[in-house]
This record gives sequence, C-alpha cells and structure tokens, in this order.
Amino acid sequence: MKRGFASDNNSGVHPLILQAIEKANVGHAVGYGGDQITGQAVARFRAEFGDDTDVYFVFNGTGANVLGLSTVTRPFNSIICAETAHIQVDECGAPEKLTGCKLLPVPVVGGKITPEGIAQYLHGFDFEHHAQPGVISISQVTEMGTLYTVEEIRAIADLAHRHGMFLHMDGARLANAAVALDLPFRAFTRDAGVDVLSFGGTKNGLMLGEAVLFFNPELSKNAKYIRKQSMQLYSKMRFVSCQFLAYFEDGLWKKNAEHANRMAKLLETEVRRVAGIQLTQPVQANGVFAIVPPAVIPKLQEEYFFYMWDESKSEVRWMTSFDTTEEDIHGFVALLKKLMAAN
Amino acid sequence: MKRGFASDNNSGVHPLILQAIEKANVGHAVGYGGDQITGQAVARFRAEFGDDTDVYFVFNGTGANVLGLSTVTRPFNSIICAETAHIQVDECGAPEKLTGCKLLPVPVVGGKITPEGIAQYLHGFDFEHHAQPGVISISQVTEMGTLYTVEEIRAIADLAHRHGMFLHMDGARLANAAVALDLPFRAFTRDAGVDVLSFGGTKNGLMLGEAVLFFNPELSKNAKYIRKQSMQLYSKMRFVSCQFLAYFEDGLWKKNAEHANRMAKLLETEVRRVAGIQLTQPVQANGVFAIVPPAVIPKLQEEYFFYMWDESKSEVRWMTSFDTTEEDIHGFVALLKKLMAAN
Amino acid sequence: MKRGFASDNNSGVHPLILQAIEKANVGHAVGYGGDQITGQAVARFRAEFGDDTDVYFVFNGTGANVLGLSTVTRPFNSIICAETAHIQVDECGAPEKLTGCKLLPVPVVGGKITPEGIAQYLHGFDFEHHAQPGVISISQVTEMGTLYTVEEIRAIADLAHRHGMFLHMDGARLANAAVALDLPFRAFTRDAGVDVLSFGGTKNGLMLGEAVLFFNPELSKNAKYIRKQSMQLYSKMRFVSCQFLAYFEDGLWKKNAEHANRMAKLLETEVRRVAGIQLTQPVQANGVFAIVPPAVIPKLQEEYFFYMWDESKSEVRWMTSFDTTEEDIHGFVALLKKLMAAN
Amino acid sequence: MKRGFASDNNSGVHPLILQAIEKANVGHAVGYGGDQITGQAVARFRAEFGDDTDVYFVFNGTGANVLGLSTVTRPFNSIICAETAHIQVDECGAPEKLTGCKLLPVPVVGGKITPEGIAQYLHGFDFEHHAQPGVISISQVTEMGTLYTVEEIRAIADLAHRHGMFLHMDGARLANAAVALDLPFRAFTRDAGVDVLSFGGTKNGLMLGEAVLFFNPELSKNAKYIRKQSMQLYSKMRFVSCQFLAYFEDGLWKKNAEHANRMAKLLETEVRRVAGIQLTQPVQANGVFAIVPPAVIPKLQEEYFFYMWDESKSEVRWMTSFDTTEEDIHGFVALLKKLMAAN
Repeated sequence: MKRGFASDNNSGVHPLILQAIEKANVGHAVGYGGDQITGQAVARFRAEFGDDTDVYFVFNGTGANVLGLSTVTRPFNSIICAETAHIQVDECGAPEKLTGCKLLPVPVVGGKITPEGIAQYLHGFDFEHHAQPGVISISQVTEMGTLYTVEEIRAIADLAHRHGMFLHMDGARLANAAVALDLPFRAFTRDAGVDVLSFGGTKNGLMLGEAVLFFNPELSKNAKYIRKQSMQLYSKMRFVSCQFLAYFEDGLWKKNAEHANRMAKLLETEVRRVAGIQLTQPVQANGVFAIVPPAVIPKLQEEYFFYMWDESKSEVRWMTSFDTTEEDIHGFVALLKKLMAAN
Repeated sequence: MKRGFASDNNSGVHPLILQAIEKANVGHAVGYGGDQITGQAVARFRAEFGDDTDVYFVFNGTGANVLGLSTVTRPFNSIICAETAHIQVDECGAPEKLTGCKLLPVPVVGGKITPEGIAQYLHGFDFEHHAQPGVISISQVTEMGTLYTVEEIRAIADLAHRHGMFLHMDGARLANAAVALDLPFRAFTRDAGVDVLSFGGTKNGLMLGEAVLFFNPELSKNAKYIRKQSMQLYSKMRFVSCQFLAYFEDGLWKKNAEHANRMAKLLETEVRRVAGIQLTQPVQANGVFAIVPPAVIPKLQEEYFFYMWDESKSEVRWMTSFDTTEEDIHGFVALLKKLMAAN
Repeated sequence: MKRGFASDNNSGVHPLILQAIEKANVGHAVGYGGDQITGQAVARFRAEFGDDTDVYFVFNGTGANVLGLSTVTRPFNSIICAETAHIQVDECGAPEKLTGCKLLPVPVVGGKITPEGIAQYLHGFDFEHHAQPGVISISQVTEMGTLYTVEEIRAIADLAHRHGMFLHMDGARLANAAVALDLPFRAFTRDAGVDVLSFGGTKNGLMLGEAVLFFNPELSKNAKYIRKQSMQLYSKMRFVSCQFLAYFEDGLWKKNAEHANRMAKLLETEVRRVAGIQLTQPVQANGVFAIVPPAVIPKLQEEYFFYMWDESKSEVRWMTSFDTTEEDIHGFVALLKKLMAAN
Repeated sequence: MKRGFASDNNSGVHPLILQAIEKANVGHAVGYGGDQITGQAVARFRAEFGDDTDVYFVFNGTGANVLGLSTVTRPFNSIICAETAHIQVDECGAPEKLTGCKLLPVPVVGGKITPEGIAQYLHGFDFEHHAQPGVISISQVTEMGTLYTVEEIRAIADLAHRHGMFLHMDGARLANAAVALDLPFRAFTRDAGVDVLSFGGTKNGLMLGEAVLFFNPELSKNAKYIRKQSMQLYSKMRFVSCQFLAYFEDGLWKKNAEHANRMAKLLETEVRRVAGIQLTQPVQANGVFAIVPPAVIPKLQEEYFFYMWDESKSEVRWMTSFDTTEEDIHGFVALLKKLMAAN
C-alpha cells in the first residue's frame, strides 16, 4: 500500500489507542458522555489545563472549531483569522453557516497573523452596520507548519481582550506545537490568554476525536446544547474519551508528536541536500513546504501521496506523522533526487 | 458494571467490528473517503440497494438525518414527520438550524403517521406565505418500537410524490426492521418509494457510523459539499467504512438484529407474566414500552439503566441490543417481580 | 375598483398618516433612526409603555416577530405558539430560518392557547437532546379574531417565567384588542407579563411600519445588530416613525380600531340574519369567520375580495378595517342574501 | 434643520414620488403584489430590461442584495466581492447569516475589483473542502463613487460564466451610473452579462423601495419564497410599486441622478480650489472622497452632516443627492475654506 506525506490524517491509529478502545469495550455504559471513562478523560484534561476547564468531546476538527466559535459568538459578530486558516479555507463555509458570523481574513507572515494585521478590522464597534468583531482565531501549529511564540499569542490575546473579544485557538496539531515549544499545553494556551481551544487528537494517532476546551465556565454554559445541535454529540462517547485517556497516559501524545516533528526535521535536512528544491517555510513542527519543478511533482506522486499547496508557485506540502519512518523519508528523498537529476 | 435497557447505544462494539477496525489499521490511506476500503463499502451498499445508489458515510444519526434532509430541501420547505420522530424530539433543533426548514409534527397511531394525518399539511403549495411542503420523514423502526408495512410506506411515498415531495426514512434501527419484516433492505426502502435513507449502524453493534443513501443521483449532486459543511466528513474514513464492510459480511447485521429483536420478545413474554405491568405498544422490533408504578421505577433503575418515556403516564422504555443476554432479561424481570410484589 | 374583506392590509393609508409623511419630508435627516422624529416617536412609545421600554421600528409584521424572537433566543431554544399563529402558518418559515429555533404548535381553543396546552412541551429542560423551551408566543388579537383576557395573558406569562422563559406577543392588531378590551395598551401587555411585543401599525391605517418593544433593557442589548442583520433597518427612518407619531396623536389608532371593530359587529349582526350562514368564532375584534356553502363563495368573491380560511370546512374569513363603510357591509350582505336564496 | 453630505439617504422623498403615493391611496387593493399598480411597475421594468425579466420589490438595499444572492446560491457556495463592498462592510453580516455562504473580499483598485484580483479565489472547484465559488458581486456605482465600464463588467461576467458562476450587481446607485455612463440601464447590466441586479430607488428620491431583477427565469423560480422568508414581502405593495412607476415616468430617475452627479462635480470643482484638501478618488457619480485635516473635520461636521470614511487616513466621504442645492455646496465650501485658512 502506498505511503506518503499528504496529511497526518492519512496515518492510521496508534496501537495503544486501539488497545484502549478494546479495553473500553466492556459491558454497557451510559451514552452521550455520562459514563465513567468520559469522566476520567475530562478529569485528565482538567489536570492539564485547570480545574474549571469545561471539556466537550466532538468528532472532528471542523466540529471542534465550529462548536468553540458558535459558543462564544452571536451571528452579528465577526471572526478574524488568517487568510490561510483552516476555518477560512478548508471547512467549506461551515463556520459561516453554523455561526452565522462573517469571517475576516488577515494576510499572513510566515503563516501567522499579527496585531498589526488584525488591527485593520478592529473598528466599527457599537456601529450596527458592521459585523461586531467577536473573536480572533489563530492556529497553533499554523497551516504553514510554523509556530506562534508565547509572547506572540499573549499579544494577540491582549488585543482581543482589550476590545472585549475572545481568543480562539485551532489546535489540530497542538501536540506538535507543545513539543516544538518544549512547553506544557497550558503555558501557550490558557496561560497565554486563549479563551477557547480546539484540542486535536486525530492528526496525532487517535482514530478520531477532538476536544473543545473553555477556560471560563461562564462562556460555555450553552455549549452542550450547541454541541448537540451541531451534530457533534457522540452516543457511545466512551470510545472517543478512552482514546484521550490513552493519549495522555505515559506521554503518548508527546512521543507521537516528537517523532513526527523529528521526521519533518529529517526530511528538511535531506531535502536541503537536493539541488533545485527550495523550502518556503521554516520547519518548526511536522510540515515541510517546498517549491518543486512542476514536471517532477506528478512522478513523485505516483509513488507517494502528497498535495499541491499552491499551484501558482508550484509549492507542495509534505506532512510527517507519528508513523512516518526513516525509510519513508530516505526512499522519498532518493526518488526526489533521481527525478530532479532527470529533470 | 451496571447493565440495562436504556438504549441500544449503551452497548459496546461487536467483536467482529473491532476486528475489522484493527485490520483496517495498516499503513497509510487517502483521507476523506478516497481510500479502497471506503470504495468497497460503497460497492457493498450498491449491491444491496442498486448500482446508482449514492452513499455518504457520516458520524451519527442526527448527522445522517440532517444531511439527507438538507440535500433535498431549501430553507423555505417544510418537513412533515411524526410528533415522536427523532428529528422532532431528540435532535435539539438540529434539523431546523441546519436545513432552515419548518418541521410539522403529525400525531401518531401506534408510533406511526398516516396519509390522513399528513394530509392536514398538504396545502398552500405555490403560496409564498406558507413553508412549502418538501419532505415527509418516517422512522423505521419507529421511536415506539413499531413497524411500517411495505404497503404503508408505499402509500406515504405515493402521497409525497403526488405532491412533488420526497420521502425520507430515518433508519437508525433499519436492521431490526429488516429482520422483523423478513425482507431485504431494498424491499421496504427504495422499492417502496423511499428517496433518501439514513442507514444506521451505531445502534446495532458498530462503534460509530451511519450512511446516507440517495436513490436518485440527481438529488444528491450537492451532498458532498453539504456533508462537509455539516461537519460530518471524517478524515480517516476507512475506520467507519470498514465497519460497514464487516457489518454486511456473513450477515452480521442480521445476527445482531435478530438477537436484539428476540431478546425484546423474551422480555415482553416475561413481563406479561408480571401482574400490574401494562405494555403500551406492540413489540415488533427491539423496544418494549410499559407502564410501571412510579414507586417501582427508581428502585429498578438502581440496578439497571433505562429511561422514563412519558412521566405523565409512568411509561418507561426498555431497549434490547445485540449484546443483551437472557440473564439480563431474567435478572431484570425477577427484580421487577420482587419490587411489584413489595409495592 | 373592487372592495372587500380579504384583509385589513388591503386598505390604503389613513389621510392623517399621509399628511404626517408629507410633513416629515422637509430637508435632510440623519439616517437609520438618528433623526428627531424617530426620537419623538420612541418617546411617545415610552410614555405609553414605560420609560425603560426599548423600541425598534421595522418594516413589517414578520420582521417584527422575527426580531423580537431572535433577540431573546438562541438557536437551541424552542418557541411554543398556537397551531394557527402567524409565525407558524404565514411567515414561510422565517422564524425557523432566522432564529434557528424549533416552533412547537399548540392546538387552539377559540383561537387561543392555554397553560394546559402549553404544558405538554414544558419538559426536557437542561436535557441537551431537546430544544430548550425559550419563548411562548401568543397573538393578540388572535388569528381567529378572538381576544385573550388580561387574566389569561397573566397566566401564560407566569407559566413562562416560572420556567425561565419569555412571553412574546404578536400584536399585529393590538389596537383592535385595546379598544375591544377597553384597556390601555400597557395593561394587557407589559403589565400582564409580556416581555417582547410586536406592535403593529400597517393593519390599522399606516402605510407601513411596526415596532418591536422590549420591556427589559437587558433583553434587548443586541437588538440593534439583529435588526440590521435581519434586513429590517430602514435608512429613511423618519418616514416610518412619523407615522407612529401621527398614529398616537389625537387617538387616531383608537378611532381607526374602534371603527373597524364596529364594522365587524355590524357585519356579524347582519350576517346572523342570513339563513344558512354559520358563524364559527365569537366576533371580538375586526374579524368574522363563517361557514358559507361552497357554491356561493366564488360568486361572492366576484364582487368582493376575501379569502377561504379552511377549505375542508368551507369556512371563510372576513376582515373589516378603518376604511370599511356601512355601504360595504350592506352591499355585501345583500349580495350574500341573494346568493343564498338562489342556492 | 441641518443639511449635509452624509448620504444620499439623508435626503427626503421627491415631491413627484409623494404625489404617486397619494394617487395610489384609493380604495382597496389585493395585498402582497397582486394589485394592478404592481403589475404596471413590473411591466415598466420589463420594458427597460427585457420581457422575461423577473422582478421582485423589496424594502431596502440589504434586502435586495440578500434576496438576489440567496436565490442563486446554496450555503456551500462562496461570494466574491470587493473588500469595500456594501455586502462585505455595511450589512452586519446579513449575507452570511441569510445565505450561509462565505464572502471572499478582493482588494480594490479605484474602488473596483478586477479579473486578476478575483482569480485568486477561482480554485477548489469540485473540492468539497472549499466553499464552492458561486457568485461574483460588484457594485455600480462602487462604494468609492467610481464606475465600471461596460467592458470591465463584461470581462468579469465572462470570468464568472466560464466558471459556472453568476454575476450579481449591487445597483443601489444604478441611476447615477446610467447617467454618468450615458447608457440605458440594460446596456451595462443585462447586456453586459449581469445575471442578478439590485436596482436601487431609495438613494435617488424614493421614500423606500428597491427591486431585484433576475435575467433568467430559471434562476428565480424560488425567489418568491425566499423574499417572503427573508421578511422582504410588503403587504401594501402598491405603495412601493407606485413609486417605481413615478420614478420611470418622464425620466424622473434621470433628472434626479443627473442633478446629484452634477452637484458632485460642482463640489469637486470647488473643493479643488481649496488649498490643502486632497481628493482621493475620481469623481464619476455622486460621491466625493477627500483627505481633510483632522482638526477641521469636527468643526465642519458641526454645520453639515457627513461621515469619516477612513479614520486612519483622515479621509471623508461627501455624497450629493437629488435635493442637494448649489447653495449647499457653496456654503459648505466657504466654510471649508474658512476652516482651512484658520487651521
């Protein structure tokens, strides 16, 4: 079966996660999250993020982002995000349809938005003709594989809070960020001013499952209704929550993310040795972006999955994962070299 | 761990389903349904329902219903359903919020709606002040554990089609219906006039996963966008589609449903012997509805999970499942007898 | 030109209202309600309903109902109303589409809903599977031309408030109710427990314009954004607000409504003398409902506008208005008599 | 009463329009557009735009834009528009909330978008992760007071149609465009490839009223339901449609627009003579944009209404109207001169 670097969700499920699912498959359990395993998983998140953290498990990343954003907005709000944000580019308009809000895209620098870029939209408060700025949303790791520093997050959080807005973080790859920053989750989320967090699991070895965390219980008092109405309430919840328990046990999340990041670094190092390939982004987590001659790309894709990122620039994206092997990298780079030489 | 009759989704995952998940967990696979397993699962559905069936896997039952209904309506339509329908009572308004449509509840007779009951809403066509009747939705098995005959479905389908409307079926328990009717799926769905079908799996032994089937490709040409925008597109799709492959293999769906239905019959038989308990619905699939003295209910619930159905009548609902055992039934009825005697 | 009894909105504009529009048409005025005339109109409403009343002018009745309901709900709420309510039957699903809420229809007795009828929906609070009951909505005058007494309104308001819900009143014909009850507006709205009121003008002599009144400023803090996002903010607002000023001046609203109600009484009296016509509702405001032989109806409609109300019962609706004349009534009844005799 | 240049909707109603309203105020008329006057107004639009033009009157400009856009999209579409477009900036997110679509802002050059700017969004067709590009929307006159040439419109229309998309035009100031281009309406709308048009009236002397025109009856077959569900269906429709009849009679629309444009030219000419004032946009219709020293602006606003356009640049907007007088201009410029001298 073909392997590749298309996305960290082309990988399967980590064996320990599958084991946890099997272990959870005993007898009956109350549905919709009233079971013991879910209780334990929530407690585990609270140990990590603080006792008053409100935790909602959902099916997927779009569901997580939309639940978080819907809960802290009304339809007359706007949501300010990167022009490359998953919510802006990859969710088929789910945020607009579900929240009713306007999304306002900010140009990115190294995949990131800045207070200066955001500021263009911070006007019209109290003026009923304008959608009222309600949330700033950032992705950590960004869609370009780069990282916000704690200081950068804090600056955006302060900007949001000064204007009575909330800071949402799309953490589909939060574990990759944590190991890259070498910080506990809390240090660059809640403690840096994030109000609502999509905590991803699927892209780092879970079968499926994301968690939405609210760091202020006042904010989330309607979240359970919104999750249900957004079709993100799982009946046999224990089979998602058990995955998160296993994810935290013995630092599985960390091992997986460290491995993925290390593989990206290896890929970067090896690719830098291939003449004619230009890397377009700093490699800070598990994504590598490169400009590859157009003629080479389809031949490479015959053997390995990966996606074109920006056709106009002949830029591709290579993602590594918890199950990427050194053989994957070396085989891929060897092919790349061969194709480049023949080009 | 406490067992019970609260819902068929309090059960776990059938071992063969878990096995299929493990087997699917090999190497990389294209995400979002582009993988081979999903292709095979779609083919399996087409073998069952016809080659031009359009198949969309989703996470849960509410997601399935909403995807089906959204795809065949516009917001100015109305959706006619039973006053007890899951879409009317148990989805926290997801159908209204997502489709924008008005839901029109019809009183039920034995859990079912009839052409006569539906007819009250079949007016105002072409009159812009009225939400335009667009879909009739029925549940098979119904929420009261009863069944529509093929003729009843056909009659409602004809009524719908005569008015330019579609027939949607919520088949969260379709397997239980198939074995109770002793008919192939197709005979009481597509061939009886159903246009859009929610094909359930979670309540009959799957870990999670439902399928939305469209029997007219013209109807479903936008379904893929609507699934994504409804946050029901699963990235690691193979882990849902593999469950459906296993579900069809060697008739697992049938064995599970037959067992569940048989357990409901056993429960019915045993409960009929308990003086003072009145059954309120015919037991045709895997649900048993009964009136139990209010004082007895909480004591029974101390040992077994189950829900009050209608507090005003002291009516409870007991659901059996693929993993209900004869011991479960006998233990439960023994306790019921004891409590009734002491009452 | 043909006259008739189709609706009180088939009438034109009262001359004093037109005069007010002309008078307002001087020079420039700040748009969107920042003008002096609008300020005066708001003050006039506050004099009537209390100083802390929050007033929002909108274009039409559907807009008024939707603004009021949207402002006090979230999409996971339900709205309980009469099965005959304008919001349920005559707004093409605008309330569902705009609020995202589920509407729950209650059977009517004499056009009215009762606490007993409402009670069937007052459950599932805090249970995320159910749309959370958020608002009870009643119409005064009802769609059947009948009236709630102050005690009836108070009872429904108490029921709503005991459950943490709000009471909305659709007052498209509020003036007709006020003169029929012989009470100031406030007595049977705010003082009887109404939280949000659609105050109609168009059906009682205005060219166009309705007002949404909130009796608790905390409730309405987002109303201005919701009005704008609901496309109900009028740029040249003075031309609606001036109509309301004229409407209150010298009791124009009262004269118009008294006249319309008196004409309905006259119509009732005269029709009672026609053998074979059966009145189906008490005539309490400006609507008369009657069963007329099917063969007679189209012949009557050749000379006078009016609508079939319920085809299955051969029931028609006749509305009187501020500009209905005694000649209209006598001519109409004379024709009715003639047609009935020939039938 | 203070006069000014804040907006063409700060003006009142042209006397001939008021006269038409009075004339329409005779007897009874069928509601909701079934009356004779509305029939005549529709015919008048068809004479102008072609016999198969489908015409829908609505209350305001936001309502017109949203009706047009909703009718030709599904929620999974995107709408591409200028970053300065009314639908993007001035409608409080009504387009997103009502259509469910994503809006994609394109940077403007002289207030206009170009095929090159639009092209960045023309990808991801058929790819379910991306909102599907459905409509390009342009404003004529633009929000910066500039004009698209017929060739520019045609080029954007061709681009849209090549991609299976529609072209929407926000014509809130269409009359000002027609006189500036010296072309019949049809030449730079339907004949240039526009599919859906918001035809404005309120900003050029009407009391209120806009029309949505569809140039392909297949496109608009659901428009009547969408208008009603969008709360834009006026009961006493004759009082809007009569205004459009008067608007076309004896070229009133033309006289009004010519006057407004001429006043803008006069304002431009006079302001160019004031040292220190910089005009930022070519004056092509009835808007003048200028950079004025911050200290001068509030003093100017004490005597004349107008709005800041871009605080960061100290740029203001001055709109002229059908009722702007030469005295208004001269008085204003005299004050400006005086303030500039003292600055």
